[in-house]
Amino acid sequence: MSDSAKTLPPDPSARPIPVLEIFGPTIQGEGMSIGRKTMFVRTAGCDYRCSWCDSKFTWDGSAKDEIRMLSAAQIVEELFALGGDTFDHVTISGGNPLLISQMSCLVQQLRERGIRTAVETQGSRWQDWLVRIDEVTLSPKPPSSGMDTDFEALDSIVSRLLEAPGRRDLCIKIVIFDENDLTYARAVHKRYPDVPFILQTGNPQVSGESDDHVSSLLKRYEWLIGRLSELPDLKDARALPQLHTLVWGNKRGV
Amino acid sequence: MSDSAKTLPPDPSARPIPVLEIFGPTIQGEGMSIGRKTMFVRTAGCDYRCSWCDSKFTWDGSAKDEIRMLSAAQIVEELFALGGDTFDHVTISGGNPLLISQMSCLVQQLRERGIRTAVETQGSRWQDWLVRIDEVTLSPKPPSSGMDTDFEALDSIVSRLLEAPGRRDLCIKIVIFDENDLTYARAVHKRYPDVPFILQTGNPQVSGESDDHVSSLLKRYEWLIGRLSELPDLKDARALPQLHTLVWGNKRGV
Ligand code: SF4
Ligand code: SF4
Repeated sequence: MSDSAKTLPPDPSARPIPVLEIFGPTIQGEGMSIGRKTMFVRTAGCDYRCSWCDSKFTWDGSAKDEIRMLSAAQIVEELFALGGDTFDHVTISGGNPLLISQMSCLVQQLRERGIRTAVETQGSRWQDWLVRIDEVTLSPKPPSSGMDTDFEALDSIVSRLLEAPGRRDLCIKIVIFDENDLTYARAVHKRYPDVPFILQTGNPQVSGESDDHVSSLLKRYEWLIGRLSELPDLKDARALPQLHTLVWGNKRGV
Repeated sequence: MSDSAKTLPPDPSARPIPVLEIFGPTIQGEGMSIGRKTMFVRTAGCDYRCSWCDSKFTWDGSAKDEIRMLSAAQIVEELFALGGDTFDHVTISGGNPLLISQMSCLVQQLRERGIRTAVETQGSRWQDWLVRIDEVTLSPKPPSSGMDTDFEALDSIVSRLLEAPGRRDLCIKIVIFDENDLTYARAVHKRYPDVPFILQTGNPQVSGESDDHVSSLLKRYEWLIGRLSELPDLKDARALPQLHTLVWGNKRGV
């Protein structure tokens, strides 16, 4: 190696990615690709602290010893070691994967292998690799989360995605616990009327199990369907539960 | 009216449509538009007799007194009387709506009002109005139904839909009770690799209720996810339950 090569700055996209979980194949349990066979890569770290976050271990320090710093190539290798020849779709989840600029390298390597990619983010941060994702879910957080939405950031993300060349699926998905959340959701839908829109049943019990967890989630879902049915400003909208929570409760890695 | 007008043959598309149920707004509980707000029009009559049919009343005579012969205009009127200004999507369901040629008139009237339409059929019969439907679900029946698939008819329907000008969403959805059904489904997917593909949990108890109906459906769904996960010939596929059955059991009109 020449001296000049030695002194080149490291390629920033080659920095390792903080990973908490790699699992699958399983199904995507929620959102626009609900039911779709996929593998999951869950990154560590979030810029939010939602009260009902179902992935608190990605940011509250409780799983910090499980975080692995992996290169894109290592992640791809582990995906294929787990999923072999059975999958063609990878969901990048968090935490907020949009904190991680070096994700571009993983996205590129998956594309090169013909793997479809999906990402979910609250829509607080931009990264250029987002335009190369096939299925982008923006999930701004309603009042019950305790978070405030930065609508300037969200506006800019939505318009960059809508204007970027290339084809991708985009949707906005909002977790609904109560009437306030629904009011927020309706305002978001009005702000971005051209983006497909999903209301998702909130899960009030994000750790442990109880006997009536499924029936309480289904009751919340029934309420949500009833409210959606009544609202003239939500015509072209979907109401969906989290299927993985119905099937597996709050178990991780499924 | 002149004599010549009097003797014109009646417009065949103006014949009334045999309707069993008109209800909504609610959500589409299954398939490609799962969760989507919609109204339902359920027609009477089917050319199949599936062992586990969840709409036997559409063909077994048990609800024959409820069948109403309605014009397209009457159906549209009733949809708006029920749904008012809250909906923009109508699902035409059965029975097999493809038995009804005069459906063309309803499809046309809904299009003129900017309403999106969806139809589900087993794929045994063709009608020209099918190309004007926005979301077509072909649901050929697996061995557990006791029916035989006419693959020549299905081939012809799939290719006519794929070749017809205009935009529509098309999917194949197969109900899965057991390993035989899955073998059948894999062969169907291989035959039509370009058509989006959905596996749907079978519901073995299509009337009445039992305490463990939900948990037994969720166990079946978990099995289906596990099998889908393992299969390299089903990469780009979805596994979905029937959400309405989880929420409402076998209740009609929701
Ligand atoms: S944005 Fe998502 S990962 Fe972050 S705290 Fe909220 S729910 Fe949890
Ligand atoms: S094709 Fe559908 S409506 Fe007809 S018998 Fe089978 S399940 Fe019932």
